[in-house]
Amino acid sequence: MTRFEGDMDSALISATEAAAAVRVGKTTSEELVSACLDHIALLEERIGAWAYLDPDHALKQARETDLLLQQGKTLGPLQGVPVGVKDIFDTKDMPTEDGTVLHVGRQPTEDATAVSLLREAGAVIMGKTVTTELAVYAPGKTRNPHDPERTPGGSSSGSAAAVAAGMVPLAIGTQTNGSVIRPASYCGVYGYKPSYGLISRHRVLQQSRPLDQVGVFARSIEDAALIAESIMAFDDRDPDTRVRARPNLIELVAQEPPFQPRLAFVKTPVWDQADMDTQEAFAELVAHLGENVGDFQLPDIFNDAVAQHRAIMEADLARSFEREYARGKDKLSSILREMIERGQKVLAVDYNHAVSQIPVLNRALDKVFDWYDAILTPAATGEAPVGLESTGSPIFCTIWSLCGMPAISLPLLQGVHGMPMGVQLVGSKGDDARLLRTARWLVNLAGE
Amino acid sequence: MTRFEGDMDSALISATEAAAAVRVGKTTSEELVSACLDHIALLEERIGAWAYLDPDHALKQARETDLLLQQGKTLGPLQGVPVGVKDIFDTKDMPTEDGTVLHVGRQPTEDATAVSLLREAGAVIMGKTVTTELAVYAPGKTRNPHDPERTPGGSSSGSAAAVAAGMVPLAIGTQTNGSVIRPASYCGVYGYKPSYGLISRHRVLQQSRPLDQVGVFARSIEDAALIAESIMAFDDRDPDTRVRARPNLIELVAQEPPFQPRLAFVKTPVWDQADMDTQEAFAELVAHLGENVGDFQLPDIFNDAVAQHRAIMEADLARSFEREYARGKDKLSSILREMIERGQKVLAVDYNHAVSQIPVLNRALDKVFDWYDAILTPAATGEAPVGLESTGSPIFCTIWSLCGMPAISLPLLQGVHGMPMGVQLVGSKGDDARLLRTARWLVNLAGE
Repeated sequence: MTRFEGDMDSALISATEAAAAVRVGKTTSEELVSACLDHIALLEERIGAWAYLDPDHALKQARETDLLLQQGKTLGPLQGVPVGVKDIFDTKDMPTEDGTVLHVGRQPTEDATAVSLLREAGAVIMGKTVTTELAVYAPGKTRNPHDPERTPGGSSSGSAAAVAAGMVPLAIGTQTNGSVIRPASYCGVYGYKPSYGLISRHRVLQQSRPLDQVGVFARSIEDAALIAESIMAFDDRDPDTRVRARPNLIELVAQEPPFQPRLAFVKTPVWDQADMDTQEAFAELVAHLGENVGDFQLPDIFNDAVAQHRAIMEADLARSFEREYARGKDKLSSILREMIERGQKVLAVDYNHAVSQIPVLNRALDKVFDWYDAILTPAATGEAPVGLESTGSPIFCTIWSLCGMPAISLPLLQGVHGMPMGVQLVGSKGDDARLLRTARWLVNLAGE
Repeated sequence: MTRFEGDMDSALISATEAAAAVRVGKTTSEELVSACLDHIALLEERIGAWAYLDPDHALKQARETDLLLQQGKTLGPLQGVPVGVKDIFDTKDMPTEDGTVLHVGRQPTEDATAVSLLREAGAVIMGKTVTTELAVYAPGKTRNPHDPERTPGGSSSGSAAAVAAGMVPLAIGTQTNGSVIRPASYCGVYGYKPSYGLISRHRVLQQSRPLDQVGVFARSIEDAALIAESIMAFDDRDPDTRVRARPNLIELVAQEPPFQPRLAFVKTPVWDQADMDTQEAFAELVAHLGENVGDFQLPDIFNDAVAQHRAIMEADLARSFEREYARGKDKLSSILREMIERGQKVLAVDYNHAVSQIPVLNRALDKVFDWYDAILTPAATGEAPVGLESTGSPIFCTIWSLCGMPAISLPLLQGVHGMPMGVQLVGSKGDDARLLRTARWLVNLAGE
């Protein structure tokens, strides 16, 4: 983190510590937000993480929080902590422009459920972070904090970069293919995408109902657990959330695993797309972990998973952005336009076949978790690529997004150019707490 | 019912009375089942309601039930009562052949959830009732009990006919378009299709996930409530069932409405497809009900509902019966083959557009139920048509199936040929109890 200037001490405080400090009166939300704003002022021109940021509005929220705390009110677990929100989550007090000129000036009248849960938990909504165009592939203005000539990854580019650069301790994003795990890997932060259906997508720009998932960015597993647990709740306005007990993420992350976890090293059918660098780093990691890791080869049915994901995603893009395409197709990037045009031709039988494969793939994965605590696999093909015209390949996230598995990227490796490389752990669907506890164990073992 | 021979007294007993008589030892399950079997023996050759019936197996279940009761065990609300099950619900002890030669000899190893709930409630599974081919349109062998030259309707042909003929007091079926309401109307029984998602479809032949719904047949509203309530339960193997309190159907049906219900008479955009006879009968009924009824015209968005339903259903048929088409298309009826071939060409965007219209239509219908307790509309275009080559038109059920509304057909009218004609009441989605209470009120008013 030596490349960053500014007051790192107060800006790089963890969210867990920050909330605790606010709780006991050791600091105020205003102080936290001010430190982050100072940091943003120093770095934003170079990084471009924010689509919308009004320092006065952020400070106003912080002061209101401080006032409530002074009055003896207890707020939630994120009290006073500033959070960045990807600019596809509706916010009633800030524009939500979805990374496209077609939505410039769009001002929602209500908050997305996840945003309103953040507020209930006491968070200060710092501002809106840059997304790629309509959360697909065409990049926004954000640069990688570790090297401004490289992409931060996408589509949650600004959220990953802002957390990596110490502009906020926490941010939220979304993943339809690899949009949380990949930018987290490229930017060297923790990116956690919970199981499908745990976090409401109500009033979040929809790409694909079977694929869209909300995720979080943080600088520690504890912080990721803290924010994720705060926004996990059944919401009858998202028909894919389910009534269930809130997972005790924070509590379980702090626990020692009852016995030595075992990891299944899965190369996936796209292993040859990983950089040599990545392949070597994983070989070393697996050797280092010794008997805690076993090789696991996915059954043949996974060979079609990437194509099935593509059929669903492209057909859903065509449907979700029908209006944007009809009214402003010349204002869409060519990459998105081509995806939409392919999606327009997908047949319903093929779409439905792909959707119906999801539970079949899930059942095949259940067998892995009878023997292993988590799958170990790359978070991306390698380091963040040089150049800002692409956000890199999501291919190492595709299967897990399709299957709705909980996944986390851990910033444990470094590539040949000194850029961060994430280790991805994938957990059993619905068992997010076990995934995070296993991740905590692995991070300890890797000697963070 | 004068056309039927046999011992009508014990065969035509209501399920509610039968279960009560068994409970207090006034009769036994064996006596009930025997009376029904005698009745079936007399009428089955003429009506053809059963795809599978083994009298010994039915009697064996009855005797086991009686033994449990003698031992002082309390069974469920259907204790000892024989129930007919459409031959697309898996039964572990009877074949399930789905009305197609392609599935001849198919013997499931497990019960459908609805069947196992019937058993838990104490019911005797009498046998499997005739379905049309794969529960679509091509008729089975069943004839209308009121006139063997006429169709019983479909696709739950055998269930409707068996209940109408006094062969069983209760039966279950399914509706994807009009397969419960229409045969109930043609056969002169109560057919009740609960709100989408209230009854599990696990191990029921799937046509279309967004459209398939389980329904029941009975000879009174009370009996319909009794069996429906017994099989309503959350089931995590049907992803569209939801955790919620079981509706108190039986209790609410018995209650007087808190104030005079009001009905919205809805002609629907397909009114011109109703027989003149039907149009006149409804005009009289509406006049008779006076100020309890108001005309309600559906907004224009409903004009596309029938086409949207068709896009979903045909695309889903193509997908659900992919294997049957690939391996045995010459053994499919031409009507089904043509539907599948149209379905193969439906685009995913059009399919998903149609699916996404369902909540939009639901919101438009919410307004009706701010003012009215139920929608009043025909159950079918008219009397059961003459001839056995078609099962009649489901068109008056299409909108309500698409929207997943609870609907009931009440055998209150008679056509010019003396055949029964159902009055359909449609309730607010999820408020099945209010629908049944309103239905009870209407039946009383009509002077049953």
